[in-house]
Amino acid sequence: MEHDLLPSERLDDLLTHHLHIIQSREVFSFSMDAVLLARFAAVPKRGKIADLCSGNGVIPLLLSTRTQATIDAVEIQPRLADMARRSVELNGLQSRISVVEGDLREKAKQLGYGKYDYVTVNPPYLPPASGDRNDNAHYAAARHELNGTLDEIVQHCSRLLRTGGKAAMVHRPGRLVEIISSMTRWKLEPKRIRFVHPHAGSEANMVLIEATRDARPSVKLLPPLIVYKDGQQYSDEIMQIYYGGERGDTNAGAEELRGS
Amino acid sequence: MEHDLLPSERLDDLLTHHLHIIQSREVFSFSMDAVLLARFAAVPKRGKIADLCSGNGVIPLLLSTRTQATIDAVEIQPRLADMARRSVELNGLQSRISVVEGDLREKAKQLGYGKYDYVTVNPPYLPPASGDRNDNAHYAAARHELNGTLDEIVQHCSRLLRTGGKAAMVHRPGRLVEIISSMTRWKLEPKRIRFVHPHAGSEANMVLIEATRDARPSVKLLPPLIVYKDGQQYSDEIMQIYYGGERGDTNAGAEELRGS
Repeated sequence: MEHDLLPSERLDDLLTHHLHIIQSREVFSFSMDAVLLARFAAVPKRGKIADLCSGNGVIPLLLSTRTQATIDAVEIQPRLADMARRSVELNGLQSRISVVEGDLREKAKQLGYGKYDYVTVNPPYLPPASGDRNDNAHYAAARHELNGTLDEIVQHCSRLLRTGGKAAMVHRPGRLVEIISSMTRWKLEPKRIRFVHPHAGSEANMVLIEATRDARPSVKLLPPLIVYKDGQQYSDEIMQIYYGGERGDTNAGAEELRGS
Repeated sequence: MEHDLLPSERLDDLLTHHLHIIQSREVFSFSMDAVLLARFAAVPKRGKIADLCSGNGVIPLLLSTRTQATIDAVEIQPRLADMARRSVELNGLQSRISVVEGDLREKAKQLGYGKYDYVTVNPPYLPPASGDRNDNAHYAAARHELNGTLDEIVQHCSRLLRTGGKAAMVHRPGRLVEIISSMTRWKLEPKRIRFVHPHAGSEANMVLIEATRDARPSVKLLPPLIVYKDGQQYSDEIMQIYYGGERGDTNAGAEELRGS
């Protein structure tokens, strides 16, 4: 494929359905979190989906293989929104994925309160003031809550959803209590939770959580997702998630499998 | 051992430290939940512990092998409190375990607000109105919230604890959101959570959760505890928990391993 890539950019193979994505070490590369969220999200076959904090658009691209719904990808960073838009175009998905550049807190009402069937979000994991703030502004915004707190993000997920609509989020387990508190505050009832453990005997380092707008309480705790079976060899389930569809030659995902 | 057992009662071996416990099919037998909670609870070596909804006292008996703290076991059903008291006596633990018969909601203040270092609780799992209410009043009270809601129980755990004191609970994962909401409402911050899965590939059917009074938010998700390794064979960890200390001839625990 020949496309206009900027000097720092590369074209990575998403290893499924011949999808490709523009990435750049200068700004952001997707990690396993996004791939697992895209697989975890029980998106409807049709309807309207929003992906918030969309980054370079990896989640909408992966979801497009499993749904005919239209997907609005909201990203605040112009550089990332531009990469996402070009990736959508080079995959010929303009009719199904729209990239919306801007602040979720301003765009949500315009996108439409109560209009969405499903929302996905892979938000920054760290509070604004916490350690290891990255000097690179792009990485900092992807990792820290500089453009909206966790509670604000959950609030907007909820506002976008119709009654019975669902939101799926990936986050750090350490924030679980906050996530659940915010979700219940904004009428999102957690219904499915799955923890991701690097090894069978290690603490979880990711949590996948799906909540339903205005639902009754009762949550399922899914089987643990174990990343490595021994040493550094991927578990069968991770192999299936990454390579299950088709076997690619390049290795966009695997390079980032270790997480960000 | 020769003791005065009632006609329906039997003396079971707790398989550790030569402990025995009086059980009866007519009223209640402990299950795996209690054993896992007793192992999960990071009780202090000394100080004051309360065990709420104590049933026939299995948790205080098991905890007595790991701590020199005094343990107050609160049980509302006279028949169970009596069995617990006799079990304490036949193990010679009267100086360390006191059985308090009565309603937690009335006894808590008398036991002492803010006086405890650790509280354990294996509460009834089902709301008062939910299905499969057992005709046997003893089983019904052990399974349904007839004598206090989940929120009331969490409230009293919190009231008993000093600042920095901890509470450990075992419950059904389906109630996780309620548990976390109640805990945060009553200033108990969840700090350690462990899910128990019958098999590596199945949903969790128990959750173990430890919370600290007046602590800062941040929770650890421990490795999943898998009960069976294949088919009906116990995993190494379950074997270690049940038979790790000493090998007993009778089989009090294993008989109940399938849960209630």
